[in-house]
Amino acid sequence: MKFNAGIFVKFVTQMKPSIPRGTRDFGPAEMKKRNFILNVIRKNFELFGYEPIETPAMENITTLTGKYGDEGDQLIFKILNSRIHESKEKENLRKEFELSLESSKNSEILTEKALRYDLTVPFARFVVMHQHELTFPFKRYQIQPVWRADRPQKGRYREFYQCDADVIGSDSLTNELDLISMIDLSFAQLNIPVVLKFNNRKILTAIAQLIGQPDKIVEITVAIDKLDKIGKEGVNKELLEKGVDPNSVQTLQPLLDFKGSNEEKVNILKGLLGDNKVGKKGIDEIHFLLEYVKPSHLKIELDITLARGLTYYTGSIFEVKANSGTFSPSILGGGRYDDLTGIFGLPGMSGVGISFGIDRIYDVMEELKLFPEHTSHSSVSKVIFTHFDEAGRMHCMGLSNELRKENIHCEVYPEITKKLGKQFDYANKKGIAYVCTVGSNEIESKCYSLKNMKSGEQRSLSIQEMIAVLK
Amino acid sequence: MKFNAGIFVKFVTQMKPSIPRGTRDFGPAEMKKRNFILNVIRKNFELFGYEPIETPAMENITTLTGKYGDEGDQLIFKILNSRIHESKEKENLRKEFELSLESSKNSEILTEKALRYDLTVPFARFVVMHQHELTFPFKRYQIQPVWRADRPQKGRYREFYQCDADVIGSDSLTNELDLISMIDLSFAQLNIPVVLKFNNRKILTAIAQLIGQPDKIVEITVAIDKLDKIGKEGVNKELLEKGVDPNSVQTLQPLLDFKGSNEEKVNILKGLLGDNKVGKKGIDEIHFLLEYVKPSHLKIELDITLARGLTYYTGSIFEVKANSGTFSPSILGGGRYDDLTGIFGLPGMSGVGISFGIDRIYDVMEELKLFPEHTSHSSVSKVIFTHFDEAGRMHCMGLSNELRKENIHCEVYPEITKKLGKQFDYANKKGIAYVCTVGSNEIESKCYSLKNMKSGEQRSLSIQEMIAVLK
Repeated sequence: MKFNAGIFVKFVTQMKPSIPRGTRDFGPAEMKKRNFILNVIRKNFELFGYEPIETPAMENITTLTGKYGDEGDQLIFKILNSRIHESKEKENLRKEFELSLESSKNSEILTEKALRYDLTVPFARFVVMHQHELTFPFKRYQIQPVWRADRPQKGRYREFYQCDADVIGSDSLTNELDLISMIDLSFAQLNIPVVLKFNNRKILTAIAQLIGQPDKIVEITVAIDKLDKIGKEGVNKELLEKGVDPNSVQTLQPLLDFKGSNEEKVNILKGLLGDNKVGKKGIDEIHFLLEYVKPSHLKIELDITLARGLTYYTGSIFEVKANSGTFSPSILGGGRYDDLTGIFGLPGMSGVGISFGIDRIYDVMEELKLFPEHTSHSSVSKVIFTHFDEAGRMHCMGLSNELRKENIHCEVYPEITKKLGKQFDYANKKGIAYVCTVGSNEIESKCYSLKNMKSGEQRSLSIQEMIAVLK
Repeated sequence: MKFNAGIFVKFVTQMKPSIPRGTRDFGPAEMKKRNFILNVIRKNFELFGYEPIETPAMENITTLTGKYGDEGDQLIFKILNSRIHESKEKENLRKEFELSLESSKNSEILTEKALRYDLTVPFARFVVMHQHELTFPFKRYQIQPVWRADRPQKGRYREFYQCDADVIGSDSLTNELDLISMIDLSFAQLNIPVVLKFNNRKILTAIAQLIGQPDKIVEITVAIDKLDKIGKEGVNKELLEKGVDPNSVQTLQPLLDFKGSNEEKVNILKGLLGDNKVGKKGIDEIHFLLEYVKPSHLKIELDITLARGLTYYTGSIFEVKANSGTFSPSILGGGRYDDLTGIFGLPGMSGVGISFGIDRIYDVMEELKLFPEHTSHSSVSKVIFTHFDEAGRMHCMGLSNELRKENIHCEVYPEITKKLGKQFDYANKKGIAYVCTVGSNEIESKCYSLKNMKSGEQRSLSIQEMIAVLK
């Protein structure tokens, strides 16, 4: 150690590095598990013909603002214009600020670019910009991080991945069927017990029309959602308190018996909304999905209190929750929007899409111990070669290249040391499954000792036999 | 169309979306080719036991500044502190600015966070932060975008991917051997003709010591680099002009005969620098690499004018150039640095790494038409099902699910239309290889017509036969 200890401690204290609140590093063990999830989903996106795209992390601020409501706008991370620098004296900074103030539009004084807040708005922007190169209906998937200046808390991050599939330019309900099949297959392969709740925005619109109080639709769904907890009387009381008029409350009574099978629920809706034009359309759409959807793993549940992004979706609404006792976070959301690209000048394009919540899926799989065995070995190497001297090390380098020709992930301990224990310790800490030790006997006999680090079993093998064991 | 045409045109003009200068969208065709490159490199990183990590896009500004020189610091994209918003009236903005000016340190008035500029500094920060969880030597790879506020121009972007592999905590030259093998394998699989130029910083240090003019080392390498163009006399003239004293110029003459095989070059270096301690160490390191490296595809060339990141590397220096006539951009760089993490309080960790230049590799492969055939079909679907009516469409939905069970990527045309031409047109534009059309005859006979869109060949097949053809 060349450093004076005192200086060193001070140096460490000063420089102790950290990362911004709400952001994360992913080490090898987490990466292996995250990639397991992403690979399952990506494979299924492609199986259903969704094409990959990527958009830049930065968008023009004008692309993003006004799309997420006032609250959302506040949470967009903005990039400082490079004209204004941070490391200046205050007086110089003030001068530059005043200069910008004079020369720029209000909205561009400090910033013209921002980090994307989700993948949906950049997708809409992409579709409009590239509309003449694209073939519609256009099916795309996109797996990229997004950034939100949210208050960080458990399970909520300022940088997180979104994992979206959307089809745009088709109002066919077979798109919804594909999405549901894809959801079914993905959660089956991830081995997560789930329930898919679905609804249709048209049902909510019809209810609002039926009672003549469209402004009360949020209060109505919120109240009905509490049925299990507070009972019919409680719901009616809350509806009245929230300003739903007594006649409307009376009209809504059939919805308080909204249980049983999905078919029974559809019948209740038919009785209540069958004569309403929008309502009938909504019921037809629900009926179509229920008729054709054949999930192997998913539990499917019609839930008219489901109203994700009420101002946004116009048809189907989806949500997937982990279905495991009290621990049931929402791990996927989605729905249909009739005019996604209108805001960028391309009206009348209906789209439907879903978004997998990767971070929550990760948490659920950890909590329920669902990650498959192979993801728990954090090491990518299957075998490490250990040795005692230069001759042994260079022989190992040759052996490792033989193994790599057979696509076996491996490495050679790089340092020369007589301490075999240190090398085994390294293998153990990294979770490498096999260790092969090469000394002068092995070099001469071309017979190598391969140790299974889990069972402790040790076998003497030729290189060909070793390859056979490791493959 | 619900819009009044006049309003519509105005609307489009106002809202025409764009992306920030120097950033790019990647559509499905580009993604397929980029993923081909990334998958080859990722696979080889893992074959050699490099572990994946990811770090956040944002780092604290104090982590980044001072690491890339003054010029680099100017090119770091900074994130605006969320306290200060862009959409305010100028007077309010001024008030907030003054408030920040009073309450913050100079360096944090407007910004505390910035976008990463490369993957090396975040890696050093990662290693120091997680030193107690990591096993050293630590081998990691990282494939993520970085951002630079550079002036955009052809081939230079403000957002681009870096693709790095480094090992830290080992000064063994077997790490260099592994990196060279990995480079060899990767470019062989990408089918790019390349030359690996390598050097050792210690040679440059020894030359500087030899002539007693360490401050002239840049001028010396720049001048020698022009040997092919301006000849010995030209180089000597330039050396004198740049202030290298005449005795030193005389001493350097053997370097002007620096050609021939790598072995011949090593002999020249031995004659010139063999008695210098640092020089001898550098020659030994070069000799070790030349002795053990066994490339199958790479051309390897010792080049003492190679001095990438002179202030940064301390041992081996690597650069790969495409080796194709006049078109020979640099597509990989790397080297060894003896104290990467010292700046964050962990001194004495030697590391060596390489960085693949994905964007340039892409350009080279396009220019030389090296992308394999299968990457030129932009569609992920291998087959599309077309139909004439609801019964046909729903039958296709069932067939598509059968194919997916066999892992065949496919889709069903979502809309109902009698126009088969429109559906074939869609298949053609997307580059889907096969079209299967289902009418009432097919539903009845369970015998389906599968058309190869390239050859035009049409075959009548059962679903099992179709699966066999498509697999």
